[in-house]
Formats: sequence, C-alpha cells, structure tokens
Amino acid sequence: MQETQASVRVLYGDVDRMGVVHHGHYFRYFEFARTEFLRNRGMTYASVEDSGVIMPVVDATVRYIAPARYDDLLHIRVSVAEVKQVSVEFNYEVRRDGEDKVLVRATTRLACCTREGRPTRVPDEVRALFTRDELARRG
Amino acid sequence: MQETQASVRVLYGDVDRMGVVHHGHYFRYFEFARTEFLRNRGMTYASVEDSGVIMPVVDATVRYIAPARYDDLLHIRVSVAEVKQVSVEFNYEVRRDGEDKVLVRATTRLACCTREGRPTRVPDEVRALFTRDELARRG
Amino acid sequence: MQETQASVRVLYGDVDRMGVVHHGHYFRYFEFARTEFLRNRGMTYASVEDSGVIMPVVDATVRYIAPARYDDLLHIRVSVAEVKQVSVEFNYEVRRDGEDKVLVRATTRLACCTREGRPTRVPDEVRALFTRDELARRG
Amino acid sequence: MQETQASVRVLYGDVDRMGVVHHGHYFRYFEFARTEFLRNRGMTYASVEDSGVIMPVVDATVRYIAPARYDDLLHIRVSVAEVKQVSVEFNYEVRRDGEDKVLVRATTRLACCTREGRPTRVPDEVRALFTRDELARRG
Repeated sequence: MQETQASVRVLYGDVDRMGVVHHGHYFRYFEFARTEFLRNRGMTYASVEDSGVIMPVVDATVRYIAPARYDDLLHIRVSVAEVKQVSVEFNYEVRRDGEDKVLVRATTRLACCTREGRPTRVPDEVRALFTRDELARRG
Repeated sequence: MQETQASVRVLYGDVDRMGVVHHGHYFRYFEFARTEFLRNRGMTYASVEDSGVIMPVVDATVRYIAPARYDDLLHIRVSVAEVKQVSVEFNYEVRRDGEDKVLVRATTRLACCTREGRPTRVPDEVRALFTRDELARRG
Repeated sequence: MQETQASVRVLYGDVDRMGVVHHGHYFRYFEFARTEFLRNRGMTYASVEDSGVIMPVVDATVRYIAPARYDDLLHIRVSVAEVKQVSVEFNYEVRRDGEDKVLVRATTRLACCTREGRPTRVPDEVRALFTRDELARRG
Repeated sequence: MQETQASVRVLYGDVDRMGVVHHGHYFRYFEFARTEFLRNRGMTYASVEDSGVIMPVVDATVRYIAPARYDDLLHIRVSVAEVKQVSVEFNYEVRRDGEDKVLVRATTRLACCTREGRPTRVPDEVRALFTRDELARRG
C-alpha cells in the first residue's frame, strides 16, 4: 500500500544526442507515476480537479545519478513523503528493469489551490489516501 | 505582408540520438511561427480565444526533406494558403540560417470552433488579416 | 499479425488549455505504437540502428477528427501501409478506450538511411516482418 | 558580464489545462538561457561537446512561486553560482515582461564527463568564462 510502481518505455524522442533521457523528460514520468498512485487507491486526479481543487507542483528536486537510455523499460516508484495542511510531497525512484541501482531520485511538492489560485486544505478524501500510507509506514 | 518569418534556436532537448531535430518538435516551431504571423498583423491568438473562438489543428502534412541539427538557427516562413468558411490553412517552410535549401515543408489546417466544439465561421477580424494577404498575393 | 495495438494514458502535460491533447503530442504516441509493432514481431528498432540503418520520418499526414482528453486511455492501432525499396509507410488509428469512433488517423513514411544520411534498402529482416503482414492482408 | 537574460514566448503547447506553463517545460527555458549565457561569452555548448566533454545535468531544484501563462513573454536570468573541479552550478530567475516579481527560481548543476561517462575537469576555457564572472561579482 505504501508505494506504487509505474513503468514507462523510453521513447526515441525522450533521448537527446548524448543517447540518454533528457533531464526535463523525467517530469513526465513522475507525473505518470503520481496519477497511477492515486488510481491504484481508487481515485483519479481528474476527479480531484472536478471537485474544484487543483494541485500544481510548487517545489521539485532531482538527482540524476546515472543515465537511462533509448528503449529502456523504467520503473518509477512513487511514495508520499509528507502531508501538510495545504501540500503533499512525493518521492520518486527510477530504476531500469531488472536492476537495483537507482538512476534518478526526486521529490515534488504539490500545493492545493482553488481554481482562482488561493491555497486551500488538502481535500479529506485525498488526505485519507496518504495518511493511510503514513500510518502503514509507521507501523 | 504576405508572410512572416519567425526564428528559433534548436535546443539540446529538441534533438534525438540521430543528432537531428525530432520530427514531432517541428509542430512547436510551426505554432510559434503562426502566432507571430498574427502578432505581426496586430492580433494575438489569445485575443481570438478570449472572443470565444478556438482554432484547433484539424489536418497536418509534413515533408522532412533534410535534417536540422543542435544549435542551428532556423527560420520558419509561414503564409496563409487558403481561407474557407470555417477553416484556415497555413503553409510553412523551414530553412537554416544563411541557406536557401528548404529543410521542411508543411501545412496545417485550423478549424474555428466554439468552446463547446461546434464549427463556427472564421471571425471577420481574422478573415480580414488573411484576405488582405490573399489580395496582395493575387494583386 | 497485421497490426499492433499500443495503449497510452493521456498525461496532464499532454493536454493544452483547450483541455485536449495538443496536436504535436500524437507523434509520441505514433512512435510508441511503431516500436511496439516491431517488438511484437521479435525485433527492436534499437537493434535496427545498431546494425547501421537509421529510419527517420520523412513524410507525415494527420487528420484530427475528434479530441482526446486528460486521463483518457487511448489505443493506437498501427499497421504497415506500404513497403518500398528504401521506405516503409505506417498507418495509425487512435481510439478512446471502449469506443469505436476514430479520433485521429495518420500516416508516417520512414526512409532507411546510413548513419551518414545516404538512402539504403530496407534491411531484409525488417522487410520480412512487413511483407509477412502484407501477404496476410492480401490473403 | 555576470549574468545573461534570455527571453522566450510561452507557446500554446507549453501550457496545461490549468492555463499555466507546465512545470516540466521550464527546463527547456533554463537550457535555452544557459546556451545563450555561453554564446554571449563567445562560446557554444556545441563546441564544448565537439572537444569531447559533455555536461549532463546532475542536480536540479526548482521553486514554482507564481504561474506563467499562455503568450507571456518571459525573461530568464541565468548566472553561475559555483564552479567546482568537475561541475558548474547555474542559478535561474524567471520573470514576466514588465514585472519585477520572480515567478520561478531554480538551480541546475552540470557535471563534466567524457563521452564514456567518466567525470573530467571543467575545461579551462569554460572555467575561464565562469571565474571571470565570479571575479566580477566579488569585485
């Protein structure tokens, strides 16, 4: 329950002339992993937005440890690091299929806002998903 | 008045592992050229949308004749090919700075729609910009 | 054997402010479908390149019939339309999960080149995959 | 001499369905600003690579303070934060044309590697550009 693993195939257009995944493209992979995290818990981010709450990324940190290459199958593990009043932080780890080594580690913090851009509390049904994870992690 | 030339620098992330601009990225360049075409005539596409008309791309053809490379300065010539009741077709030619050879030729047709997705006539103020060009070309 | 269906989830970053998949992004989906087409037949495009033949897209046509939206699950059917001396043409049809309506129809033609950019014949092992399909189609 | 300002127009395809620049796209803008930083000092990143040294991004941090919107003209200020043995750190600030408020602050650290991926010293001619800036800053 604590984390979700989402898998992506590295496309030709994701790779730069060094032959490795261009650093900006990982945000696509993180976004994909995050929406699958919610979907695995019975919720879609689309439904969160439909309820009037948007969750833009407000902070991000990325460590590119080793390169991923064209046609690699990558597994992105995503977990919740912290749930605050108006924001949620996610952790990501990217690995190549069949390997233990972490290629990329990252965090993104998403803040809850109204459509007009005012901060608002994390919706209870979203908080419930995350705290369930936190409780499980703390044992 | 008949055409606009917009210039873009090829970024590292636009180039694939063949060392050439990835074919899908040209749509960014065409979009940029198209919005500059309108801006040069005193109109923004943002203002068209604010008036309630959206103009999605409904048809596209592209011929990739020769590759563009990292850090190339590209010039995109855009002109209006045809104005119909509810759509406008644009032509594009991409050249490398200082060269005559056309690297890419393309067309895109944009249809006018309401926000609800129903076809609607090309707004008069948009039509005026384009027919002025057509008249100039014929005249 | 005649076609492959590859499925993609529409990400937040794929959708523009009309709320629909931005027209340029479909080339990512086509590329993904094309590589899965080869993989399903026991070949990877990476291995084609390793043998010294690159296959850039030289022609593309796209008809955007109806919009795809955020979080849609899309199925892309890809098939081989034609195999010539130095090029292969693919057809694509994009549908939303659970629906018959085709949202986007497209073709791309890929030409075989050496790494130096000279046209070269479609490698026999690639041709074999495609003609097997053509034979099946003709009955 | 201490910093470069590069300007970009926000394209339709850069904006998500919130109507704001998608967080991953800023890496394009940073990359553009960084290459212009070098170009303004008489060097291209392409020439650095031609000399056998590649400079992948190994660390990035981004704070998204306020959104940028479709058709905004953005100015990206880039400066060198630190030059180490094998890496260089850049700072970025993104502002909307005509405004003082910083929309996005970011850092990226680039490491020098050989084509085989081994760490290597920052080339002297690159270091010279950066330390000249550092000297100027320290007065």
